[in-house]
Amino acid sequence: MKASYGALIETVRAKNPLIHHITNYVTVNDCANITLAIGASPVMADDIGEAADITRISSALVINMGTLNERTIISMLESGKSANAAGIPVVFDPVGVGASGLRNRTVVSVLDAVNLGVLRGNISEIKQVAGMQSATKGVDASRDDRISTGDAVAIAKKLSSDLGCVVAITGAADIISDGQRAVCIENGHPMLSDITGTGCMCSSLMGAFCGAAPDAPFEAAVTALLTMGIAGELAFEAAGGKGLGSFRAALHDAVSRMDAQTLMRRAKIYEA
Amino acid sequence: MKASYGALIETVRAKNPLIHHITNYVTVNDCANITLAIGASPVMADDIGEAADITRISSALVINMGTLNERTIISMLESGKSANAAGIPVVFDPVGVGASGLRNRTVVSVLDAVNLGVLRGNISEIKQVAGMQSATKGVDASRDDRISTGDAVAIAKKLSSDLGCVVAITGAADIISDGQRAVCIENGHPMLSDITGTGCMCSSLMGAFCGAAPDAPFEAAVTALLTMGIAGELAFEAAGGKGLGSFRAALHDAVSRMDAQTLMRRAKIYEA
Amino acid sequence: MKASYGALIETVRAKNPLIHHITNYVTVNDCANITLAIGASPVMADDIGEAADITRISSALVINMGTLNERTIISMLESGKSANAAGIPVVFDPVGVGASGLRNRTVVSVLDAVNLGVLRGNISEIKQVAGMQSATKGVDASRDDRISTGDAVAIAKKLSSDLGCVVAITGAADIISDGQRAVCIENGHPMLSDITGTGCMCSSLMGAFCGAAPDAPFEAAVTALLTMGIAGELAFEAAGGKGLGSFRAALHDAVSRMDAQTLMRRAKIYEA
Repeated sequence: MKASYGALIETVRAKNPLIHHITNYVTVNDCANITLAIGASPVMADDIGEAADITRISSALVINMGTLNERTIISMLESGKSANAAGIPVVFDPVGVGASGLRNRTVVSVLDAVNLGVLRGNISEIKQVAGMQSATKGVDASRDDRISTGDAVAIAKKLSSDLGCVVAITGAADIISDGQRAVCIENGHPMLSDITGTGCMCSSLMGAFCGAAPDAPFEAAVTALLTMGIAGELAFEAAGGKGLGSFRAALHDAVSRMDAQTLMRRAKIYEA
Repeated sequence: MKASYGALIETVRAKNPLIHHITNYVTVNDCANITLAIGASPVMADDIGEAADITRISSALVINMGTLNERTIISMLESGKSANAAGIPVVFDPVGVGASGLRNRTVVSVLDAVNLGVLRGNISEIKQVAGMQSATKGVDASRDDRISTGDAVAIAKKLSSDLGCVVAITGAADIISDGQRAVCIENGHPMLSDITGTGCMCSSLMGAFCGAAPDAPFEAAVTALLTMGIAGELAFEAAGGKGLGSFRAALHDAVSRMDAQTLMRRAKIYEA
Repeated sequence: MKASYGALIETVRAKNPLIHHITNYVTVNDCANITLAIGASPVMADDIGEAADITRISSALVINMGTLNERTIISMLESGKSANAAGIPVVFDPVGVGASGLRNRTVVSVLDAVNLGVLRGNISEIKQVAGMQSATKGVDASRDDRISTGDAVAIAKKLSSDLGCVVAITGAADIISDGQRAVCIENGHPMLSDITGTGCMCSSLMGAFCGAAPDAPFEAAVTALLTMGIAGELAFEAAGGKGLGSFRAALHDAVSRMDAQTLMRRAKIYEA
């Protein structure tokens, strides 16, 4: 199983796919740099006047609603439809859903209009998308939403079947399901939640791997989360004691140096 | 006196308050990361359609007009009013006031519509807000506006009384007044003005401490500036010789590792 | 020849010119920090309501269309006209031209309305501006557009004459021409294309040097590319083996420490 994930690292570096993002202005620089670090190319273009043009030359689309506004919501929907029409995989990151009516309505609009390849969120966000009660805390997972791995797997499987896409719940342990299969990843480090953008960067990595392997969104999502989790461990080992600024630079270092061997040797993944 | 500032470091890390920002896209990533580094959680949401919702779940609001535009000015005003209605402290950073009529008018609008907890700016900005002549140089303080500590204290005290909020003037020495009290902080390092966003990050730290201690905006503002000043000194000691990229990472390191003991031991603060 | 470029490093640090940017939200923080690192001051203000005011107090304007939208396109045009009226040099970075009709139309509008000081792009972008066939790949140069140095020089010279401005083509080798003169710079390192924003930062450095020497856009453009190329080499030597996060911090370190001696000693520049 691990070999197929390791192989994807080599595929994305060989193919260098172009990944279109409609994303937020808080973490967009991190998303661009992490996309480059794993071997893909980023493009960010959110004007409705070029959504279709840019999507057409891209290999995957990442929709991240972190700093959504009236103008960009329309671009998210139109780019998503263009991606579907062109057969390009779409990764959706419903940042902060539950924190406002606008975010809740936007998620409904995206799910109505766009067929997703992968949906990624923290447990608070995924519970909200699944129509369950959740205790949102802005863009971070709420402590009140912590659940057992078994419960998370059940939620991911059910939502995956309902939406017809891969669902990934990221947190201390990551759960990924395509409705049939489900895996749990136990890589990572708590410092990853102490810098902004690690969730957004996971979605960008998913976009990169989906762009490299458009027919394998489950493997793409898993490889993205293994990459980020292992990079977090390596970054902590290299610089965690210095503080968050050094940890952040080391995280980008680790993603840029990730290879199949490192990924396979360090992966803590099991069927769930 | 120093003990109460040290205690606030522990309070913010224990409470992990959510800090809403309507801020600029130049330094927003730094603001998010510094908010996390001190132990709070950032959220940035500038669409008018969710301003009230997001403000309602937050513990403080930071309004930073660095890259204001017609759309976000309305969101600044509405979020400010929502924060007032909810009893949440508001920090206002009038970036670049004096550089354009739009900025000047926006400051008037904010001061008319919103009761502030803390107003923070460099000496050029604060003089401009106070209705005095100032020699603006974009978003940085003009050398022509340098004044004595005594004059700065007088301006801060007077403006604080007029506006009914804490006023903080940041520079080589920082002055903070609540109209009655005034203190001067002599921590910091010149390299802090050689990277972008240190002023914005001060405002975000003020938001974090205000969120942790909503009834003590003066102590919150002082603790924020002690934190940034001391972190600047530590960052210079750790990495200043390497250059600005390393200094910046070290600054985030130092804020993330700041504790009550370090703050109290290194604080250079006196009543002014 | 090298001495005049070295002297410009000292001039920009002595004059500290204010550089207005209408730029993209992906790399804007890097642009602000690199502008500071070379000794200038950045300001980013994209609302049409202050375009003229901000341009009037600035020493140069950088127009970067990386994340253009309907609102900012108007601001680009108005700021450009204001800069021309005020006699301030304009640097134009046509990011991603060729990737969408919107970008192509915006380039035509800018060239129609604004007299440029410097036009900078990768080979795909410059070929597109010159009306030649090009194989765009989003915001990065396409491998299919690689051409000989001689051909690049011919394109730069012709376009420079046609537009009446300096033209710079950046890549593994950089070509700069003012229609009469042409030089080739062979400094740099491949890792520069593995992080986002190095092209944008080149344009910001050009803005800084143009602000310091408004009558010498050719020398300003050359000095900017020597600075970035040499800084890339120094950053690779300092941190390249660690990975892209460390390389990026080291790049900012190297620009902040750049001086006339380093630039003249390491410059690999010849007439082309």
